[in-house]
Amino acid sequence: MVILTISITSIEMEGETTKYAADISSVKEAYDRIKSLVHRTPVLSSTSLDDISGRKLYFKCENFQKSGAFKFRGACNAVLSLTDEEASKGVTTHSSGNHAAALSLAAKIRGIPAFIVVPKSAPSCKVENIKRYDGNVNLAEDNMQSREEVMNKVRQETSAIYIPSSNDGRIMSGQGTISLEFLEQIPQIDTLVVPISGGGMIAGIAIAAKAINPAIRILAAEPKGADDAAQSKAAGRIIKLQEINTIADGLRAFLGDHTWPVVRDLVDDIITVEDFEIIKAMKLCFKILKIVIEPSGAIGLAAVLSETFQKNPAWKDCKHIGIVVSGGNVDMDVFWESLNK
Amino acid sequence: MVILTISITSIEMEGETTKYAADISSVKEAYDRIKSLVHRTPVLSSTSLDDISGRKLYFKCENFQKSGAFKFRGACNAVLSLTDEEASKGVTTHSSGNHAAALSLAAKIRGIPAFIVVPKSAPSCKVENIKRYDGNVNLAEDNMQSREEVMNKVRQETSAIYIPSSNDGRIMSGQGTISLEFLEQIPQIDTLVVPISGGGMIAGIAIAAKAINPAIRILAAEPKGADDAAQSKAAGRIIKLQEINTIADGLRAFLGDHTWPVVRDLVDDIITVEDFEIIKAMKLCFKILKIVIEPSGAIGLAAVLSETFQKNPAWKDCKHIGIVVSGGNVDMDVFWESLNK
Repeated sequence: MVILTISITSIEMEGETTKYAADISSVKEAYDRIKSLVHRTPVLSSTSLDDISGRKLYFKCENFQKSGAFKFRGACNAVLSLTDEEASKGVTTHSSGNHAAALSLAAKIRGIPAFIVVPKSAPSCKVENIKRYDGNVNLAEDNMQSREEVMNKVRQETSAIYIPSSNDGRIMSGQGTISLEFLEQIPQIDTLVVPISGGGMIAGIAIAAKAINPAIRILAAEPKGADDAAQSKAAGRIIKLQEINTIADGLRAFLGDHTWPVVRDLVDDIITVEDFEIIKAMKLCFKILKIVIEPSGAIGLAAVLSETFQKNPAWKDCKHIGIVVSGGNVDMDVFWESLNK
Repeated sequence: MVILTISITSIEMEGETTKYAADISSVKEAYDRIKSLVHRTPVLSSTSLDDISGRKLYFKCENFQKSGAFKFRGACNAVLSLTDEEASKGVTTHSSGNHAAALSLAAKIRGIPAFIVVPKSAPSCKVENIKRYDGNVNLAEDNMQSREEVMNKVRQETSAIYIPSSNDGRIMSGQGTISLEFLEQIPQIDTLVVPISGGGMIAGIAIAAKAINPAIRILAAEPKGADDAAQSKAAGRIIKLQEINTIADGLRAFLGDHTWPVVRDLVDDIITVEDFEIIKAMKLCFKILKIVIEPSGAIGLAAVLSETFQKNPAWKDCKHIGIVVSGGNVDMDVFWESLNK
């Protein structure tokens, strides 16, 4: 595997509240801003899955979030944070997935246009979602250069504001609202297991959860075929990969300069799992939890059931584990093919 | 279609509280008995589905109930209502589906055996569920005579107590606890749409809901290919069919002498839908609600989206509609085939 390293932009400062791009105050402000618009998603549990894992598991179902994924929290916070003048030009992003639909819905709610650059390979249900929320779809080739070129053209034409999918304080603060709800719903949680990709969700969740309960453990779950975050933690700097290979289409992004310091400091460990473990977890979610999830959404359960986790003495006293089920946007045939693998 | 009529056993009496086999008090007693054991299932909603239906819809997700269906409420209430002496012999039933697994789990919790007679054609996931909860599976042929013969043999050998799947006051009271939760979760509900089969669930729900809010409308949803309840309402007496033909394997039972009087008196109307409407609703539940449901569980949404309902001026002012999603026990391949029809 070819590994490409890049330099880190450090944003650390002296004071606690300015250390990261988000903090507990910005998360609480985000919640005040968005709470009437987001679903307070339910938490499911299952004695059967508790028996299989040997722990008490709690599933925070962000697959039931508006737009079908947690991304709506951050997008909504970012869009509502804009001044009227900024908002008037509309918003734009490039995304293969859930952030695009979430941003379209947030823009629709604010009554402004969303210009979305989508790579041609994006799952059709995700493109459908963007259109359902009146997002303007602009197709790009399946590489970052083309995505950025198309987006820059859109920005020149429209002056729309760019809302990144992860590496942004407003996004991190929005996703962090998951912790506020989850720890209120299940106060006994001692460990949170969260999918990691660009790091916006786990950064927001870690900041808020550790502010509420400093003893809480934050574990990231990552596919082995896209383990840039695990490699970054090991190397002590952001590592980007040139090749990624995983079924989990939502977990292919890399950490950024705002999300990396939080992952470095507040994420206790990263558990990597194989795609077959993700598929096994998807099947259990179908059969036992009765929920539809995309592969990325199953990785938390996959991590908890993995040998890596089960056999590590460091995690033996993780007894009440909160698992964030990130999203449910999956094409029916992809879902079926995955379950039959 | 050949129709076989049978006589009605009237159980009506003078006093309000003894009119039916269950009443609001027995439902509340049931809830006190079972509430620490059942899931308080979440209610989901979706702006997209509200837009499609032109109403506010609330989905009570009993597919997330223990054992994968609402049946656990009634089975749990019945098993916990037994004296220690009665319980010591174990319980038995014949069922092709969710009641069997629910009864097995309830018996397991009480620490007594469950002897389940299952027709050979039962979905394999449902048989798996029975075994997961340590139920003793006794196979019968695919007809009522064989099921009853096998069960009678089991009863002679074990003296186990028979717990019917629907036509029983304890079962009706247990299922009625759905109303207590649902109307507490969403007090503005003006209409409940409930699948009808043996009638135990809708009877319990109607009794409790109308005691809480006499103005609430109770609508049953039934497959056209198994419309015995609609025919019974029209005829003013229990009608049983000799042929049934529907994808909804959970909705093939007939009303009994305890459930019929409640359906006759408290169910405002029965909406029948074609199988293709059920399948369309299953797809929407997959794509938009992100939940796994069996065909029976989709029939409430199918009914609300049907022309029969949408064009009926009598239901024009049903604005806040509570839909009971009854269960999620479906074989993966059956689910997939259904979604592709």
